[in-house]
Amino acid sequence: MDVRSQKTYEALFALEDLREILRETSPTHELNNEQSKRFHDILQRVKKTLEEIEYNKSGSEIKYLADRIELRLREEDHINLNPIQAGGRLTPEARKALIAYGDGYSVCDHCLKPFRLDYIKRPPVQEFYSELADFLNMDAVRVVKGARSGFQIVANALLDKGDTALIAEVGHYSLALAIESAGAEWKEISLDENNIITAENTQKKIEEVKRDTGKLPKLIAIPHIDYTYGNEHKVKEIADVAHEYDIPFLYNGAYTVGVMPVDGKEIGADFIIGSGHKSMASPAPTGVLATTREYAEKIFKTTSNRGDISGRSFGIKEVYLLGCTVMGAPLIAMMASFPRVKERVKHWDQELKKIEYFIKEFLNIEGNSIISELPRRHTFTKVDCTNSFDKVAQTHKKKGFFLYDELDKRKITGIFPGATKQLKLSTYGLTWEQIKYLTEAFKDIAEKHGITVK
Amino acid sequence: MDVRSQKTYEALFALEDLREILRETSPTHELNNEQSKRFHDILQRVKKTLEEIEYNKSGSEIKYLADRIELRLREEDHINLNPIQAGGRLTPEARKALIAYGDGYSVCDHCLKPFRLDYIKRPPVQEFYSELADFLNMDAVRVVKGARSGFQIVANALLDKGDTALIAEVGHYSLALAIESAGAEWKEISLDENNIITAENTQKKIEEVKRDTGKLPKLIAIPHIDYTYGNEHKVKEIADVAHEYDIPFLYNGAYTVGVMPVDGKEIGADFIIGSGHKSMASPAPTGVLATTREYAEKIFKTTSNRGDISGRSFGIKEVYLLGCTVMGAPLIAMMASFPRVKERVKHWDQELKKIEYFIKEFLNIEGNSIISELPRRHTFTKVDCTNSFDKVAQTHKKKGFFLYDELDKRKITGIFPGATKQLKLSTYGLTWEQIKYLTEAFKDIAEKHGITVK
Repeated sequence: MDVRSQKTYEALFALEDLREILRETSPTHELNNEQSKRFHDILQRVKKTLEEIEYNKSGSEIKYLADRIELRLREEDHINLNPIQAGGRLTPEARKALIAYGDGYSVCDHCLKPFRLDYIKRPPVQEFYSELADFLNMDAVRVVKGARSGFQIVANALLDKGDTALIAEVGHYSLALAIESAGAEWKEISLDENNIITAENTQKKIEEVKRDTGKLPKLIAIPHIDYTYGNEHKVKEIADVAHEYDIPFLYNGAYTVGVMPVDGKEIGADFIIGSGHKSMASPAPTGVLATTREYAEKIFKTTSNRGDISGRSFGIKEVYLLGCTVMGAPLIAMMASFPRVKERVKHWDQELKKIEYFIKEFLNIEGNSIISELPRRHTFTKVDCTNSFDKVAQTHKKKGFFLYDELDKRKITGIFPGATKQLKLSTYGLTWEQIKYLTEAFKDIAEKHGITVK
Repeated sequence: MDVRSQKTYEALFALEDLREILRETSPTHELNNEQSKRFHDILQRVKKTLEEIEYNKSGSEIKYLADRIELRLREEDHINLNPIQAGGRLTPEARKALIAYGDGYSVCDHCLKPFRLDYIKRPPVQEFYSELADFLNMDAVRVVKGARSGFQIVANALLDKGDTALIAEVGHYSLALAIESAGAEWKEISLDENNIITAENTQKKIEEVKRDTGKLPKLIAIPHIDYTYGNEHKVKEIADVAHEYDIPFLYNGAYTVGVMPVDGKEIGADFIIGSGHKSMASPAPTGVLATTREYAEKIFKTTSNRGDISGRSFGIKEVYLLGCTVMGAPLIAMMASFPRVKERVKHWDQELKKIEYFIKEFLNIEGNSIISELPRRHTFTKVDCTNSFDKVAQTHKKKGFFLYDELDKRKITGIFPGATKQLKLSTYGLTWEQIKYLTEAFKDIAEKHGITVK
């Protein structure tokens, strides 16, 4: 058994215990006898653990990091295919940022006038926001508490009771809830026969809403890549149609911003929303909300109200953002990942080559097919195993769980336990070695269970 | 110079680089030559760093953890008096949780039907929610993205356009914005002559709103301890008055939940809101929103809408929460801190003894006075130095910054740079050694600048 991942945690945790002694004794760090003993014991323990890592020697093993909370070894010891987790894996820089900036309001050490998150210069939050706007080719950007928080900000700013907003038939539930929470209604635009949202169907739906309610929709919000098929929708053409009717267009980039190039001006987006934990190598809950000069004033509206007793006002604070948003560790982690994120979007073509390779091999297993559009335009892919693995499941004593178990034995995870008909997976961020290991594993499982492999 | 804190970071970061090699080579961990060399180099480097820590030897020093982001040594090498940061300092368990669960959707590894954060059993999120409700003596609780997110959920669920909500003259701006973002108006309840919000003034304001608008306020939201004076307001009596008018009462526990005992039923709160990053030893953005059986259905309303094309519904998802809230590292860190948080509230009396001691000594500096109520009921305290340090500032070449600099030289931080008239500080969580060091430092600075110390 390989214990290196676990032992690496063990060493990291011991160093956190060491750090705690430094915190307890700050600022003099004059350790009393008990602290001194504890300090040296920890150092000896870490040294021993380093030996165990070096020689891959098992020793005593820890299972929990704290009360009932297990270690998480999913990314260290497995290939993780879960499509919502692939783009949100942290970079080493982000992990270091979490270590250093974990404490509550850690970002606020040097918060000076005008006292708003996006004006903080140390650490360089202000610069980051500006670089983020450039990255998306938009005029203004804010970090928000997840993509859904971005949807809510736009919905609150734009929608009133009785208004209608259009979403895709494969739009995310959190977008629907954001619209509903603002008191408005959401209606769906149908997929075409290829499971794509098109400009044509968008226009039809606009006309339908106009006819049925007497009013145009107030917002059109479409994912570039959806969470059901991982298909690419016609965002540029949809933006054009929306603008013909003077309806603002929200580009939902939860699966694109941070993994593939996104150019807001090129798309014609009025709003771009991205997800930190889904695609920007950031911890939850983080997201980005970018907009144009035209809409910035509306969605980033500052308050003009005054206290009727105190007379105070909070002029600089943005109403729909509730002032400062992500004030600590997750923001700094997002910033720390950003240089690598900017770089990795340039290599999106490589990621597409890997999913292509995977699919080619996967289709060598008789009965397998691909539900997502082909060729793939994203690594998030829905596959069909009804005529392969699901047939095995019909007679297997573990039923559908056999596939999960077989993958798990090979240290592959992220497939929904028990599913053998349709599976969602993403190969994003895997190395070529991992891709090859993965395809061999699927073929191996197929052969073991009597499925022909070409 | 003591380099142990910095070197501890260095070792932690090196181990993260080691961990990255394990991630790159998962699941086989067959390292190629380059990886193998890198792996062993890192191990040697950590060993050297451990030696440097053991003997407090300076060596090469790192300043940044990633591109332009400095190390943060505020809690390791200083006494930090910033009152918004005191209760949000992480426990070692929370720091370990961040190390293990940093990746985006880390909490979702074992998310099964019905697919909602608060049903996850592994890690034990579901149990945590239930223990958290017990801890506050409330019927239902949700973790939310900061206290302000809790305010917004309640405001969205309860307030319509044209409604009025009452807040304290010293209510937090984010509460005002949450009300405003829901389209409602906020009005203030005055402090009495002792800077306390009382039931009497609450009743007066209710009557005033009724007279002026013809309608009762829809919500009364009062901080138990405010952010201006750190004074304790008459929440129990205010809850009684609110209920006489059938108005729901929101207890803002941003400065109390997690540091002092809070019993929702005893207070008569319809909503309790707490802040993870302010008082629960958790990273931002985290908070808790607890309520009664009566209000749970309203504020945790699930959606009943259906897609007009797809026919899908998201029945289990809570509209005002936008479904799942804090899906990753900050939630697990909050859970990891919780056992210590439950324990620490039992020792609140000790924290009050420390602030009492501090004040006694601080008042031995001639000219100093305390603006907050006395005796202190919270460690968050506003002091006045107009007749002591501010007099020095008048003629000092650094003006008000002399005090910040003098404290900084003594490794004390968290006071607003340049301020010498009124200062906000909190002694929460400091050891007795630190409290004594702190009081001596203030007296030392006073004497150095010719202020009489008794």
